[in-house]
Amino acid sequence: MHAGDLLAGSCESTGSVACVGLDPRPELIPDEIVRSAVAQTDDPRKQVAIAFETFMASILRAVAGHCAVVKPQAACYEAYGSVGWQVLERIVAEARRLGVPVILDAKRSDIGATAVHYRQGLLTSAPGLVDAQQLPGLGVDWITANPYLGGDSIEPLIGGPEEGKGVFVLVRTSNPGAEDFQDQVVGDGSLLKAVAAKVHEWGRGRQGASGFSDVGAVVGATWPAEAAELRAMLPKTLFLVPGFGAQGADASQAVAGCTDQGTGILVNSSRAILGAWQSATDADPVDAARAALDKMNQQLCAALP
Amino acid sequence: MHAGDLLAGSCESTGSVACVGLDPRPELIPDEIVRSAVAQTDDPRKQVAIAFETFMASILRAVAGHCAVVKPQAACYEAYGSVGWQVLERIVAEARRLGVPVILDAKRSDIGATAVHYRQGLLTSAPGLVDAQQLPGLGVDWITANPYLGGDSIEPLIGGPEEGKGVFVLVRTSNPGAEDFQDQVVGDGSLLKAVAAKVHEWGRGRQGASGFSDVGAVVGATWPAEAAELRAMLPKTLFLVPGFGAQGADASQAVAGCTDQGTGILVNSSRAILGAWQSATDADPVDAARAALDKMNQQLCAALP
Repeated sequence: MHAGDLLAGSCESTGSVACVGLDPRPELIPDEIVRSAVAQTDDPRKQVAIAFETFMASILRAVAGHCAVVKPQAACYEAYGSVGWQVLERIVAEARRLGVPVILDAKRSDIGATAVHYRQGLLTSAPGLVDAQQLPGLGVDWITANPYLGGDSIEPLIGGPEEGKGVFVLVRTSNPGAEDFQDQVVGDGSLLKAVAAKVHEWGRGRQGASGFSDVGAVVGATWPAEAAELRAMLPKTLFLVPGFGAQGADASQAVAGCTDQGTGILVNSSRAILGAWQSATDADPVDAARAALDKMNQQLCAALP
Repeated sequence: MHAGDLLAGSCESTGSVACVGLDPRPELIPDEIVRSAVAQTDDPRKQVAIAFETFMASILRAVAGHCAVVKPQAACYEAYGSVGWQVLERIVAEARRLGVPVILDAKRSDIGATAVHYRQGLLTSAPGLVDAQQLPGLGVDWITANPYLGGDSIEPLIGGPEEGKGVFVLVRTSNPGAEDFQDQVVGDGSLLKAVAAKVHEWGRGRQGASGFSDVGAVVGATWPAEAAELRAMLPKTLFLVPGFGAQGADASQAVAGCTDQGTGILVNSSRAILGAWQSATDADPVDAARAALDKMNQQLCAALP
């Protein structure tokens, strides 16, 4: 399925624009899962792997059908090397089994011939040694990518629309330091507007039946005025919106970049969902996560036009 | 050892400013290694892993002591998922055993709390589940990083100078598309100059005994006039210089960013070394790689002031 249609369709079928960030960190793992992992092995790296996989798989099962998409953060897994990557592979496989679309938040960037390898490993498949073998990669639906290297670093990540893969290009990130370069005055706009113009160019003619293309934009919830301006520039572009909740933006800010129909955005929350158990008085950690997602869905629905 | 001193010292002790790119790709693996890998297992992913590890380890042993540093390209390994990451781990371990400094070309970028995980996984160590355990990461000496997200995405990657780790920030990349954003006019300069000014700021007061700091800059060989301008702005900054050879720059262009003393640069070559066997008539592939490195060293030495 066309990658834009996949996400737009998932928003429709789940009635949610939420993206659940699957960002495991030791301090977010509930005590019971920690105890169980430690009881299973003395190897501290395997303990982390067991705990991450157990918790993320439970979260996945709890949120499947109630969010539009999930988004593992590559860095959380990469922190534990190849063992962490194995966990990521299992979590993505579980999401696929559950029919939940997956964005890998990897923010990759490299020159053309090398960008191809990221595409192979994360979205599609990589060549074997002989006989034109193709070895399936992680197989996520979308990745995030950093545009600093320019068009010939992004274009190799974008395949044929029929492949059903998409790329969210960083336009406006949610962190305070985003101002350092993204706000630099360029022409009669800013660097981030120059990047947005390129996102428009890269996505041109690539819309699916939903009207959205498979080249998306990351537009932080912490800059709502800009989100509305970017929507005017990019009417056919899906926005991945980080920065809701723990990073400080409220629901009305998070949906500032939606279309007039209230579509075209995917609002991410990670810590507020995974760590909901830490401020819940008695709830099961997975129930607490689901309750946090339900509340987020209500807030976003109320804020959407 | 201070990360700047590590690389400056390695240039001195080896008499080379060369950086050998350890970028395995199926089409670069010599036939004999392919045959051997295929004979050892029917699993095509393991075949790739065996072939990559065999060839990269042979190259490492051939170039150790004759180049300043090696630079695995993360994407080439990540293309094969966790199995590829295992190969990367073994190759970095082998480089450390041989005493060859390692730059991981990962071009990572993320907001602060997440950038910390990249630092943990690639440069230092990540926390275990309990008891303040620390699980060693890949343990390379330097990584490359993309500045688009701004200062609070780079600063978490930079630790105390006593930790002996360094970060090369992308300033001017070697690809043609680098013009798209890096050349945008910003103030009375360009975006890449604005990034260079930040590199100067991030590295201030962080020089080792060699005079070089542990915050470096990627400055493509394909833009020699700019390399000289950037050197004037960044006298204490090590430049990692991609783009020599296969990407089109000659030796005089590649060294354009060195200091008056002919120091401060590390010139990368990947394909021209790993794939040298493909144009050598009868040489052993590893001998051909070593010969290509020796020739590169001669060319660079002749071009240095």
